[in-house]
Amino acid sequence: MKTVAILGASGYVGGELLRLLLFHKELEVVKVFSKNYVGKPVHEAHPHLRGFYKNLKFEDLSLDSILKADIVFNALPHLVGMHLTAQLHEHGVTIVDLSADFRLKKAELYKTWYGIEHPYPDLLEKFVYSLPEINRESIKGKKLLSIPGCNSTAAILAIAPLFTTDIVKNELVIADVKVGSSESGRTPYEGSHHPEREGSLRPYSPEGHRHQAEVEMILSELRKTTVNVSLVPHATSAVRGSLASVHVLANKDVSEKDLWIIYARFYRESPFIRIVYSSKIKVPDTKNVVGSNFADISFSKDKTTNRVTGFAAIDNLVKGAAGQAIQALNIALGLREDEGLLIPPLKPS
Amino acid sequence: MKTVAILGASGYVGGELLRLLLFHKELEVVKVFSKNYVGKPVHEAHPHLRGFYKNLKFEDLSLDSILKADIVFNALPHLVGMHLTAQLHEHGVTIVDLSADFRLKKAELYKTWYGIEHPYPDLLEKFVYSLPEINRESIKGKKLLSIPGCNSTAAILAIAPLFTTDIVKNELVIADVKVGSSESGRTPYEGSHHPEREGSLRPYSPEGHRHQAEVEMILSELRKTTVNVSLVPHATSAVRGSLASVHVLANKDVSEKDLWIIYARFYRESPFIRIVYSSKIKVPDTKNVVGSNFADISFSKDKTTNRVTGFAAIDNLVKGAAGQAIQALNIALGLREDEGLLIPPLKPS
Amino acid sequence: MKTVAILGASGYVGGELLRLLLFHKELEVVKVFSKNYVGKPVHEAHPHLRGFYKNLKFEDLSLDSILKADIVFNALPHLVGMHLTAQLHEHGVTIVDLSADFRLKKAELYKTWYGIEHPYPDLLEKFVYSLPEINRESIKGKKLLSIPGCNSTAAILAIAPLFTTDIVKNELVIADVKVGSSESGRTPYEGSHHPEREGSLRPYSPEGHRHQAEVEMILSELRKTTVNVSLVPHATSAVRGSLASVHVLANKDVSEKDLWIIYARFYRESPFIRIVYSSKIKVPDTKNVVGSNFADISFSKDKTTNRVTGFAAIDNLVKGAAGQAIQALNIALGLREDEGLLIPPLKPS
Amino acid sequence: MKTVAILGASGYVGGELLRLLLFHKELEVVKVFSKNYVGKPVHEAHPHLRGFYKNLKFEDLSLDSILKADIVFNALPHLVGMHLTAQLHEHGVTIVDLSADFRLKKAELYKTWYGIEHPYPDLLEKFVYSLPEINRESIKGKKLLSIPGCNSTAAILAIAPLFTTDIVKNELVIADVKVGSSESGRTPYEGSHHPEREGSLRPYSPEGHRHQAEVEMILSELRKTTVNVSLVPHATSAVRGSLASVHVLANKDVSEKDLWIIYARFYRESPFIRIVYSSKIKVPDTKNVVGSNFADISFSKDKTTNRVTGFAAIDNLVKGAAGQAIQALNIALGLREDEGLLIPPLKPS
Repeated sequence: MKTVAILGASGYVGGELLRLLLFHKELEVVKVFSKNYVGKPVHEAHPHLRGFYKNLKFEDLSLDSILKADIVFNALPHLVGMHLTAQLHEHGVTIVDLSADFRLKKAELYKTWYGIEHPYPDLLEKFVYSLPEINRESIKGKKLLSIPGCNSTAAILAIAPLFTTDIVKNELVIADVKVGSSESGRTPYEGSHHPEREGSLRPYSPEGHRHQAEVEMILSELRKTTVNVSLVPHATSAVRGSLASVHVLANKDVSEKDLWIIYARFYRESPFIRIVYSSKIKVPDTKNVVGSNFADISFSKDKTTNRVTGFAAIDNLVKGAAGQAIQALNIALGLREDEGLLIPPLKPS
Repeated sequence: MKTVAILGASGYVGGELLRLLLFHKELEVVKVFSKNYVGKPVHEAHPHLRGFYKNLKFEDLSLDSILKADIVFNALPHLVGMHLTAQLHEHGVTIVDLSADFRLKKAELYKTWYGIEHPYPDLLEKFVYSLPEINRESIKGKKLLSIPGCNSTAAILAIAPLFTTDIVKNELVIADVKVGSSESGRTPYEGSHHPEREGSLRPYSPEGHRHQAEVEMILSELRKTTVNVSLVPHATSAVRGSLASVHVLANKDVSEKDLWIIYARFYRESPFIRIVYSSKIKVPDTKNVVGSNFADISFSKDKTTNRVTGFAAIDNLVKGAAGQAIQALNIALGLREDEGLLIPPLKPS
Repeated sequence: MKTVAILGASGYVGGELLRLLLFHKELEVVKVFSKNYVGKPVHEAHPHLRGFYKNLKFEDLSLDSILKADIVFNALPHLVGMHLTAQLHEHGVTIVDLSADFRLKKAELYKTWYGIEHPYPDLLEKFVYSLPEINRESIKGKKLLSIPGCNSTAAILAIAPLFTTDIVKNELVIADVKVGSSESGRTPYEGSHHPEREGSLRPYSPEGHRHQAEVEMILSELRKTTVNVSLVPHATSAVRGSLASVHVLANKDVSEKDLWIIYARFYRESPFIRIVYSSKIKVPDTKNVVGSNFADISFSKDKTTNRVTGFAAIDNLVKGAAGQAIQALNIALGLREDEGLLIPPLKPS
Repeated sequence: MKTVAILGASGYVGGELLRLLLFHKELEVVKVFSKNYVGKPVHEAHPHLRGFYKNLKFEDLSLDSILKADIVFNALPHLVGMHLTAQLHEHGVTIVDLSADFRLKKAELYKTWYGIEHPYPDLLEKFVYSLPEINRESIKGKKLLSIPGCNSTAAILAIAPLFTTDIVKNELVIADVKVGSSESGRTPYEGSHHPEREGSLRPYSPEGHRHQAEVEMILSELRKTTVNVSLVPHATSAVRGSLASVHVLANKDVSEKDLWIIYARFYRESPFIRIVYSSKIKVPDTKNVVGSNFADISFSKDKTTNRVTGFAAIDNLVKGAAGQAIQALNIALGLREDEGLLIPPLKPS
């Protein structure tokens, strides 16, 4: 049994780590940090968890206290925990970083997408971008795991198999993503005010979202050449869920059956991928993965044009954050990849 | 390990039994029945459960097939499975009946509330109305369990403690209940059509809902005299959840602290009751129990009148149906009451 | 044509005044005030109104500027505009006050419900509590109109007819109200954060809501004796709408037909009351009044107890605020009561 | 004053025609047809319209009765009214057809997209595809108007201006559309069942939606060469709204300022187009057009790729159906284009 500390434990991702780790047989949460809830019990921030973690109280961030755990999950907002992460790394602790702080391998991309000069360019290479379905092997035994963004996860899973082939063009991949309101976190703001958000359909980051750099990085690696990706997310009034529709051009005639073979082969060892093409309704729906670490995936070929689309539906807080973090950690630690994660989705909800 | 058959397994309650029983160590689902999905795998009806129950296929109802299981959960609509239940009883199988078929003890009440002459009046007495928080002892060792309705469960749990005292009047108990759309089941109809239901706030069964007979039966037993109950449910655009606000008149001056003591004492041995009065937000919210078997409970005393209200928030499909059924069965079988049911709620969702 | 100034014009009620007054032939908005949008065009605060009010810009509050209009609508938060109102009154301008500042006639009630010593007790008597369906006559010709709260409006309209008779008891009136998220205004806060609010069902102000003082005041006037009212509102995930279910005890046998006669007679001259008892679905639904000034009303008699309930569904921002304010002003000015207000509801929405 | 008959008047589009025509000074509804509501008053099908159209009752379809009106709006489902339309045409009545029956100019496309041999190929040429912002002039004086689909309207308006230039490639236009639940009409079905739809994010018609033929037809006309369009709609849990994100590749360096000039010029005479690029939030939101005939439009250029996207947000039942029908008819009749249609959107809702 290893011990776990969670930084940013009062947020939504923190809450999901707490919920999911209740099912885990090899990990135990011993420390929770949140500056807004110092001294308060877990259920003050997460009333749904009342009755669980009865002996745990939130603490203010302190290196000493964090280091009492074997493993640190960083669920702090981007940039907030960067220096702390660097310090923790020096102490040799295992870090599972759910922020964007160490996702991109090239420091200059932090200038383009996050507007900062990255202070730890050397650390970038040390972190593994941990998307098990893509690079399971490279995660094994590692102590520095960077967990992909939710939109990136959905977009990459939706289309990755095709970039191991030459059937699609790489000039432009359009990742049109639809997301729920929990994606922007727990702090209220105008765009998340219920009367403003409910029933809303609107794009955001229309000039390209930060996550597109991650998708571009991974697809380019798979294709072994530069792939141009444009990712535009859209706010909807779902609470949970990220649905990526990734549109590409086929450069030759391809059937849906061909696509099925490619997808099925690519994901055949991935316990959380469910290819739903053969269902009554052959497209994924975020409703079917709520609360779980599954990614439901399908694809289509336009009947009159050469457009091919890969679709992936995930729970942004689970497969898009807390669940994927645990999945990656399981692999790093040599545990079963699905330890503590075979929780069935909740539907209807 | 005991084996389980589920009748009506393709509906929402059936789906929740399937989901919850995945967590249960002593029960295994071996038979699922649904006339609309005969021969189909579980995920055809419940796409969220794809990957689970891979070897199970829906069957058409047949006494022989049902009797291959030790325990039968009846999740059929009211009146549909009545005769089958009577037959199953003759074979001595354990029956957990989630319908209303055997909830009321007096046959004449079926005339008033369900418009039928009850065909098995003798069986009514044999079934235990199984609301563990109220009558845990009487469930032990029984083989015929009738599971309360969701509105009844919420309403009774909200106010029962006060009916073990003499501080409230029994002339009229007003149970004003607010429910989510999953309560009316899986068959589409006009009132559940998304454009009609979303954002809707409306009463239904305004002349008194069937469930009020159950509440009246239980409160009268607790108070050992006739209690008049009026229950009016209201449709909202939540998907899951039943919130009961049960208003009564105090017949003497009573403080919220007095109420706290009464509630805490009454529920002190009930693992699924969470009294939330002491929280930052001291009222229950259905959001905090989604997917779980918890009932979050609180109460208030009007500051200028003698009105006292008990509040209970439950997940109508779990504590209001599938979860409570498993909880009651656990007790009947002599297992831990919370076996397979300590699943944390999902929030936000 | 009279000119209008709106204080608090960037909020939801301000937005609705702007929208509704576009339909009014005798009133023209010439001044809009909002400290957060000074110098900005109307569509900066209300993007849905882009293309309307092209020449209007928000101003900071100033007595001189306000006095350029004939009529002032005060849509500021409670207590914020109180002193300004007193000043405006001295200048003899017509004031339509949508805040609670001058609703209650007894100064001591402001202590109980708003925690303040009312600074202008003399002004309380001068303002008319303006609920046209109840006191149409007393509004005529007046220059100081206080507009009822949304919950009060729904609760009073739901039950008022019965308090002109002796068929119900006055010991306790239970007003159980369900409201949409727009009711708490435009400023984001935790309880209105979309992931927290969507799907939520929870009571608030469980010890009695401020609006109960208004309901008590009006019902007591109608019954000519003290009526005790307890009002408990509940948050739901509708955006618009306030549904009041007001439960009372009949003190004699009464049929729904009797109730119909009482309601029909009481509201026979009220153009915005629609008694829906005779419909296919005989209860009101907030969906049917969205965007309009209508109040849909019905009632029921419990079939086994002496509980009688009056139901009213309104749009909290229209009949519960901006629409009712215009309706009252129309009466005060001697215009047609429905001038500019016969706008059909929007459904589905 | 001209008289109007509505076929399919009990559906959502029929309801919106009834609502909107209340604001029209030159048109009067005299006949409403619906086989499910024969003999019933309007408010039986449209309870929100209670109090309006008091003298109108639904009738069963009959050529004689329809011909009593000057103008016929066909809001029947696709294919249902086709023969009737052909008959009505022979009698010389003005027909505003909201179905897809006569939208496409080439009969063979009905085979591809609707699976039928079109029975009236000659009539196809006689109907004007009536999207005023694109082909206002060709509508004037016409008596056979075919109203575009809602997805087509949103997709075309989002991107049309760019196809009057040579700055984008025409190999493939990706129209990724997000729609509300009212789009699929009033008949309940599994996918619109509230517990299934609420919170859902899923594609439908993933192999290309019928409306893509319309978009292709119009963009090809504008560009004067074949443009390939792929349109994939997605179901969301909004009730109203269609948001089109139409992605194209620029074939040269283009700035957002360039785009602005193109859009502003193209739409400068269109009273219902609101280009929102200059707003605080520079993207459109369906929330801002609910209940109105406005189309809010914007565009973006990806900062690292050559992807350009046009966005359009409309109310699918108004600018996507009933409102656009009235707008086109206004033009055909030589009335003001905005007669009866300058109704402000309802927000929040």
